[in-house]
Amino acid sequence: MSAKAANAISPARREDYAEWYQQVVKAADMAETSPVRGCMVIKPWGYSFWENIQRNMDAMFKATGHVNAYFPLFIPKSYLEKEAEHVEGFAKECAVVTHHRLEAGPDGGLVPAGELDEPLIVRPTSETIIGATYAKWVQSYRDLPILINQWGNVVRWELRTRLFLRTAEFLWQEGHTAHETSEEAWEETKRMLEVYREFVEDYLAIPVLTGLKTAGQRFPGAVETLCIEAMMQDRKALQSGTSHFLGQNFAKASGIIYQSREGREEHAWTTSWGFSTRMIGGAVMTHGDDDGMVMPPRLAPSQVVILPIFRSDEERAKSVEYAEGIAGALRKLRTVWGDPVSAIVDKRDVNAGEKGWEWVKKGIPLRVEVGPRDIEKDAVFVARRDRGAKEKYGQGREEFIASVPALLKEMQDGLFARALACRTANTRDIDGFEEFGRFFTPKNAEKPEIHGGFAMSHWCGGRDCEDRVTNELSVTIRCVPFDVEKSGGGNCIVCGKPSKGRVPFAKAY
Amino acid sequence: MSAKAANAISPARREDYAEWYQQVVKAADMAETSPVRGCMVIKPWGYSFWENIQRNMDAMFKATGHVNAYFPLFIPKSYLEKEAEHVEGFAKECAVVTHHRLEAGPDGGLVPAGELDEPLIVRPTSETIIGATYAKWVQSYRDLPILINQWGNVVRWELRTRLFLRTAEFLWQEGHTAHETSEEAWEETKRMLEVYREFVEDYLAIPVLTGLKTAGQRFPGAVETLCIEAMMQDRKALQSGTSHFLGQNFAKASGIIYQSREGREEHAWTTSWGFSTRMIGGAVMTHGDDDGMVMPPRLAPSQVVILPIFRSDEERAKSVEYAEGIAGALRKLRTVWGDPVSAIVDKRDVNAGEKGWEWVKKGIPLRVEVGPRDIEKDAVFVARRDRGAKEKYGQGREEFIASVPALLKEMQDGLFARALACRTANTRDIDGFEEFGRFFTPKNAEKPEIHGGFAMSHWCGGRDCEDRVTNELSVTIRCVPFDVEKSGGGNCIVCGKPSKGRVPFAKAY
Repeated sequence: MSAKAANAISPARREDYAEWYQQVVKAADMAETSPVRGCMVIKPWGYSFWENIQRNMDAMFKATGHVNAYFPLFIPKSYLEKEAEHVEGFAKECAVVTHHRLEAGPDGGLVPAGELDEPLIVRPTSETIIGATYAKWVQSYRDLPILINQWGNVVRWELRTRLFLRTAEFLWQEGHTAHETSEEAWEETKRMLEVYREFVEDYLAIPVLTGLKTAGQRFPGAVETLCIEAMMQDRKALQSGTSHFLGQNFAKASGIIYQSREGREEHAWTTSWGFSTRMIGGAVMTHGDDDGMVMPPRLAPSQVVILPIFRSDEERAKSVEYAEGIAGALRKLRTVWGDPVSAIVDKRDVNAGEKGWEWVKKGIPLRVEVGPRDIEKDAVFVARRDRGAKEKYGQGREEFIASVPALLKEMQDGLFARALACRTANTRDIDGFEEFGRFFTPKNAEKPEIHGGFAMSHWCGGRDCEDRVTNELSVTIRCVPFDVEKSGGGNCIVCGKPSKGRVPFAKAY
Repeated sequence: MSAKAANAISPARREDYAEWYQQVVKAADMAETSPVRGCMVIKPWGYSFWENIQRNMDAMFKATGHVNAYFPLFIPKSYLEKEAEHVEGFAKECAVVTHHRLEAGPDGGLVPAGELDEPLIVRPTSETIIGATYAKWVQSYRDLPILINQWGNVVRWELRTRLFLRTAEFLWQEGHTAHETSEEAWEETKRMLEVYREFVEDYLAIPVLTGLKTAGQRFPGAVETLCIEAMMQDRKALQSGTSHFLGQNFAKASGIIYQSREGREEHAWTTSWGFSTRMIGGAVMTHGDDDGMVMPPRLAPSQVVILPIFRSDEERAKSVEYAEGIAGALRKLRTVWGDPVSAIVDKRDVNAGEKGWEWVKKGIPLRVEVGPRDIEKDAVFVARRDRGAKEKYGQGREEFIASVPALLKEMQDGLFARALACRTANTRDIDGFEEFGRFFTPKNAEKPEIHGGFAMSHWCGGRDCEDRVTNELSVTIRCVPFDVEKSGGGNCIVCGKPSKGRVPFAKAY
């Protein structure tokens, strides 16, 4: 392989994190901007990562009693308007369908025609349209609970977009459930947050904080929003999944009414919860390094690539055969997570160094080179993606194959530990407002990433104090941890009034 | 279970096939119309069927070298206009996005605001937006072929809709490939038609004819459209999957240009192929009977339901335990197709007869009743969905469990054989135009289904003759079979000019 400097991502993380991110997504061939403003093209390597996320998360939803269904892409304007806070939250970023055909215009080009009686909104989220459907389905308490999830696309018009992190159209899942009691709906809200926590920590290898959003950060129309929050390598927070307790707000807006066990007419209690392709960006920003993407082994599109090395057609045939044999043996093994090991052979006629670097950038967990000398020794040459690109080791073929399941597990755990160490190193208890301000102010304008992280500080619970911090420092309260009181009482970092415990303040995506 | 008459679908197939269809979809709890004009809600039982279709078909795509990706939902109007025939084909049924937010209007309600510079079309199909992306990806012959599939939703505005068969929004997959040569693109077009044929025949148990569409029935912008065509129980044809050879039309429209091995600039050769939720309707219309849906075992959301029978809480506990034991044993078995047998226990506190009929209507392949007397005898009581609802048999528990994989296969094969027999019985060689007319004219206005089927007749290849048949009899040529010459030459049914062989004429959905 050629020298690292020439192949590394430019700029490096410390030089320009935002640009580094874009370059990694590009170099890993995961996504690109499309000719349609605000929309992205998810390329096969990125989409395959999403397919693995979907498959595993879907199994967790089904294990917790949910089924999938599909509701309309379009929401009549009047439906969106039924919940006042909800429509206020989404009105500014709606794609609006107003016509249903194109016809020849005065200058020969096609113009929109067939104006609709009522404009349709391309769903930014589906509470209102699903609520209207549940209202038809629910008559009695016997019809509850409804536990449904939908995989699909949604649109929230954004002018400033970033691949995966913020795009006008994105892919996600949205769960929508309806229950007989407040308690059941709360249990569901917490259960699904726990599913997200487990998924993000155990599959994506990203440690998260769990808690409740403050009033200012809640989902429009929700009574409470629970969330998981992760720290990226630039020390900014990324909201990584939300689970909303909607109380009876949407049931009232949509008319989800059931006859209770006591024969009374009651509004149902609903929840919703969502997880999106945004977290692909989260995985890049958590695990990626200056050589490119680093895929968490448990969800990697492929876990092992075998690169046959050859200088002649004869060598090629031998190396490819040897490589295929190893790939075949690997595919018969199972990872510690129960799936077959996924292994591919890259036999393209491309310079071996170039080929190797492509896989480094894509973040495949293990790269294995096999050339004539390795074949002679019945051996392989292995590089782990979680080590430096030049750090490789030789090993006997059988020994290597047998080591793969444990190795993938070790790498998965290592990524989580590294991310957790990063978060720990950049989380600080802060009690004075001046120190708090310094914490969030870059020391060096040229290295804006050398600042902040999570400040664990006291907060009185007041909206004014929260707003002041947001306005002055562009810092938000990421959540009120479920165990907020564990940190002990104190005084609000802004106003000095009593506080029950510390909450994480951070700059966020 | 209660008497059949009271539970059967009303009307029966022979009474009113179209209404029977709607009632089956409803009774099987597969889908319903939504409050959004033209859009449907796919309910969990219908969606689970689609998930099984997706999973199995996706594996076939991957086995033939394809990968999945995701492209934007929106297509700029100017992109759609790049291919003249294409835009003409879709302009009349486009959902057009013209604004990107809602704001308070003069009368207080919200009105569309933020008019877009260029209207966006919600994709009716993605040739143009994917073509524009491939144009960026392709420079050299080394970048070809591109073999990509997309799972997603599309919108084709329809005023008269029918669940699954014709809705404004539907779910589908669309494959889009680009190749170096015409030959390769042709091979791909044929390969994917063969994938569809295999899938529809071997998984959905629906026999199909394969061939080329006539010029009048081609996909807008395609050079050739290959298709599979099935016969429903009302003897009408349903187009069940299409694979398009696009030649260089879209490559020219989108600018997909590569440098050839000889160093010349050439336009790529492209294909596209699609399969949609419409075929769920096709499965209902092929296999459903007067008791409701009949699921093909290979794709059934569940293959076996076990119904514990009880009259007291004590009996309930015993029956449920016994039922769970059987379900557990079944789940450890594999079907002849390699998946685990899927079995569920319905322990709801609902009248046993009512419960049984729900499952008949949903079309689950096997219903197993277990009550106190069965438990005593270590036995079960079994009903096959492909037999009459009252036809049941007792069997030893172990014997039944062991029989399930072969039984499911037998039922799958039986459904295919029944559908094939129906097609054979309703396909006739016809040589005179008068007989042809009679074949497609209902004998009894009250039983409009007692007519027609597939007329295998000669056609000269002329558009005029095709149009005359379509205009006078609402009959179309479903395809020109690949082996058209096998039937021997003859004279066109309309004009009497020479014909190379017979083609299937039919009324169609």
